[in-house]
Amino acid sequence: MSATAPASRVLISEVGPRDGLQNAHAIMPTEAKRRWITALAAAGLSEIEVGSFVRPDRVPQLADTAEVVAHALTLPGLTVAVLAPNARGAERAIAAGVHKITVPVSASRAHALANVGMTPEQSVEALRAIAALRDAAPEGHRPTIEGGLSTAFGCTLQGAVPEDDVVRLAVAMVEAGADEVGLSDTTGMGNPSQVKRLVRAVRAAIGHRLSGVHLHDTRGLALANAFAAWEEGIGTFDGSLAGLGGCPFAPGASGNAVTEDLVSMFHDLGVATGIDLDRLIAARAILAEALPGEALHGAAAKWRSARVAA
Amino acid sequence: MSATAPASRVLISEVGPRDGLQNAHAIMPTEAKRRWITALAAAGLSEIEVGSFVRPDRVPQLADTAEVVAHALTLPGLTVAVLAPNARGAERAIAAGVHKITVPVSASRAHALANVGMTPEQSVEALRAIAALRDAAPEGHRPTIEGGLSTAFGCTLQGAVPEDDVVRLAVAMVEAGADEVGLSDTTGMGNPSQVKRLVRAVRAAIGHRLSGVHLHDTRGLALANAFAAWEEGIGTFDGSLAGLGGCPFAPGASGNAVTEDLVSMFHDLGVATGIDLDRLIAARAILAEALPGEALHGAAAKWRSARVAA
Repeated sequence: MSATAPASRVLISEVGPRDGLQNAHAIMPTEAKRRWITALAAAGLSEIEVGSFVRPDRVPQLADTAEVVAHALTLPGLTVAVLAPNARGAERAIAAGVHKITVPVSASRAHALANVGMTPEQSVEALRAIAALRDAAPEGHRPTIEGGLSTAFGCTLQGAVPEDDVVRLAVAMVEAGADEVGLSDTTGMGNPSQVKRLVRAVRAAIGHRLSGVHLHDTRGLALANAFAAWEEGIGTFDGSLAGLGGCPFAPGASGNAVTEDLVSMFHDLGVATGIDLDRLIAARAILAEALPGEALHGAAAKWRSARVAA
Repeated sequence: MSATAPASRVLISEVGPRDGLQNAHAIMPTEAKRRWITALAAAGLSEIEVGSFVRPDRVPQLADTAEVVAHALTLPGLTVAVLAPNARGAERAIAAGVHKITVPVSASRAHALANVGMTPEQSVEALRAIAALRDAAPEGHRPTIEGGLSTAFGCTLQGAVPEDDVVRLAVAMVEAGADEVGLSDTTGMGNPSQVKRLVRAVRAAIGHRLSGVHLHDTRGLALANAFAAWEEGIGTFDGSLAGLGGCPFAPGASGNAVTEDLVSMFHDLGVATGIDLDRLIAARAILAEALPGEALHGAAAKWRSARVAA
């Protein structure tokens, strides 16, 4: 597969209502989630992962996902995504009418067991079962399935993750029925040269099925890694407003790539996002109010307020 | 000039004692500066900008630069640099025995006037006078002169800075006697594509005289921009411990590239720095003690302590 040219327009996919909230100290009220998702969509975000269908006793912050999905589906033009690690969750997702299901598969065996209680191979089998559910659903109710390849750039539990494992699992996910595969730097251990190498290696194996990257800012490299991925032709970038997030089952991992900083960077690069940066930043107020005490990260919110004050 | 391959070893040049302290709220006691610089050198930093010879009533934080230089010169193997904007300052720098003088020349006329009270062209003439002082000094007492091209990537006062102005001034600085030219993103407005373009354009004009980049993290892009510059063959990167700094005469600009995050990134990239990251991070304690209330930035200090705690 030859290198792909950098995209002149990218898709910024918001994962805060799922990846951000599952790591928040407080549980955000359903009503605040609705307002937040509405504000994000109004700012121009066209894809939002609004929750996950997992055991509510394990992730109580997302126990109201069905309600949140129902609201998100009323927002015109919005792709409504959820995370589901197994067929039971995917059944609920399909019943709820989501447009997209992300199925996590960890490249690190240690993280896979800690995160979803399955080996990577068992997660691939779960993805196969979810794809079968999708295929059995009536037309118009078949969600896109994205395999989310976690810890693709390293794991705080296992250490280095061999590139061959990542490529092998990406191939297995596509073979099991994933429409798309995203590479997740769950622990924020990736560096931009590694991003370029891994994108090339995975693209050589699964071509256009490689859709996007999901980056964390543990080492301050989320934007550098996003730039590197963009240079290699990646066109979809997960982000979380104010950088909320982390992974409860990956010690030492910290927040997601900051959505508004991704948007700011791409606009600076002359790349269209369809997103209004000022309206996006304004949506942080909902987080400040509904998640008191939670740290809000990000450079764009700071420099734009300094600019207004100057 | 053809593209240069990425360096397998880079020089991280610490500017905290100059660029960091001139923007700090408190004045760091001379004794603490000595301990800080000693700790930085002990961590493996081989070049430190320890102060500036400017009017003490304008920058009282650096009024003790001659004393600090005298101490820094006792540290074996350390390149001792200072900033001097004019011949009067350079005379004091040469008398103090520094190894290197950085002469700031702003590409933005508005910033040049606000920062040093001279037009860009007058700053080039100041550099010429400083080069004459260097040439007149006895052998063994002739410092390297680096022209620091400020606001090369944009200016909060002027707005966009034309690439042609940057290239023209870089050529003028070399012609006036600068041994090296560094590109400064004083306001943190640069983006990684722009960094690549500008490095190529300036290198095409002055070749190996283009030495390094000085980046700020206003938009969270300091590391992305450093990576882009490294990919274009740049081998010297200014940083400030804990990201101290900014520019009092560039509204909205915030901290410098965080030295320890630069070191962490280059080590992740497999690039040698000669610096011990743990000892470098430990030196932050001196800042915390000697500059109470000052915000200390940086990802490396956080994730390494999380790793230890996990």
